[in-house]
Amino acid sequence: MKFYDCNTAPSPRRVRIFIAEKGLDIETKQVDLRTGENLSDAFRALNPHCTVPVLELDDGTTLLDSNAICIYLEETQPDPNLTGKNAKEKAMIATWHRWAEWNGFTPVGDVLRNTAKGMKDRAITGPHNFAQIPELAERGRARIGHFFDELDERLGDCAYVAGDRFTIADIMAIVAVDFAKWVKEEPGENLGNLRRWRETLAERPGVVD
Amino acid sequence: MKFYDCNTAPSPRRVRIFIAEKGLDIETKQVDLRTGENLSDAFRALNPHCTVPVLELDDGTTLLDSNAICIYLEETQPDPNLTGKNAKEKAMIATWHRWAEWNGFTPVGDVLRNTAKGMKDRAITGPHNFAQIPELAERGRARIGHFFDELDERLGDCAYVAGDRFTIADIMAIVAVDFAKWVKEEPGENLGNLRRWRETLAERPGVVD
Repeated sequence: MKFYDCNTAPSPRRVRIFIAEKGLDIETKQVDLRTGENLSDAFRALNPHCTVPVLELDDGTTLLDSNAICIYLEETQPDPNLTGKNAKEKAMIATWHRWAEWNGFTPVGDVLRNTAKGMKDRAITGPHNFAQIPELAERGRARIGHFFDELDERLGDCAYVAGDRFTIADIMAIVAVDFAKWVKEEPGENLGNLRRWRETLAERPGVVD
Repeated sequence: MKFYDCNTAPSPRRVRIFIAEKGLDIETKQVDLRTGENLSDAFRALNPHCTVPVLELDDGTTLLDSNAICIYLEETQPDPNLTGKNAKEKAMIATWHRWAEWNGFTPVGDVLRNTAKGMKDRAITGPHNFAQIPELAERGRARIGHFFDELDERLGDCAYVAGDRFTIADIMAIVAVDFAKWVKEEPGENLGNLRRWRETLAERPGVVD
């Protein structure tokens, strides 16, 4: 297997933490997003969507999506379990994983990609160019605020995002919270549940940013 | 179990097709999105995210996300399999499922929610109001065009979206293609693979729109 990563980028970080939690050792190749290596012909041949991460299996199959890569790793290395052990737990973890992605990770990406000078025509990942929409960045900032508040509320109900143990939903949420620093958004001092959770997670080797 | 549905809405349609493919018979309650029933106190108590579908389990657990509901149903009623039988197949299906959602379903939602008069402050689903962004609707239309082209190309490589059999990735793609009609976007006559696939799917009882 070969893992195509970019060690400064948040999306592959989801998989990096997943790999560390599983204790796996996978050959890793860095892809330089700053120089547009992901848009090169060589990389396009590997992944026409022009995104990282990619996991290339030994038979040449390429997995092109963070969540799909985690699904593969969970199936092939079940311990420790990160996506649920039975129908109900799997569904609850998937719900909160998705919630953190849509309400946390996506709005941060909206702010960054619609404001960064270096992403002028790259407002969406992938092979097609799209112009930036400043209003979408503004909306993203408002959404990040709601995300922090709701995450804090959730973490008042339970110790981790999807319940009483660390799962892929925490990985998604922590990556979103840390990604928000890129656009200078941080949870307020008053959000004590979120801060307590963030401090607990910082002790995990894979989470060190 | 009780399924909270809105039979005119595309997101619960994903689950309706999934239920039909599984041959399940689940008690169903319609939620009237046009009158804002999803924003009522009673519905908020069931789902604070204010969205359909919801699956309420017999123990009172509520599953609030289309994909999470499908995960639960797949685990409890494994036949016919719709999400993959082994690690590699599960990952490939998840990749294409996600691809169709992000590149098809999401842009159609962007067009609709950022243009429809009845959705003036409802540009995003959920409990918070957001103003419409006309440029986002324009961008959505461009993305729908790319989605149709890329779906047609994919269906030239294989009979179904994720490979050689019908899966949840086809459900996501067909719901996105049909949802696009709401904003008057349809695949061109020249996209023969997409049309062939659409016609094959129309024969499945759960797909009848």
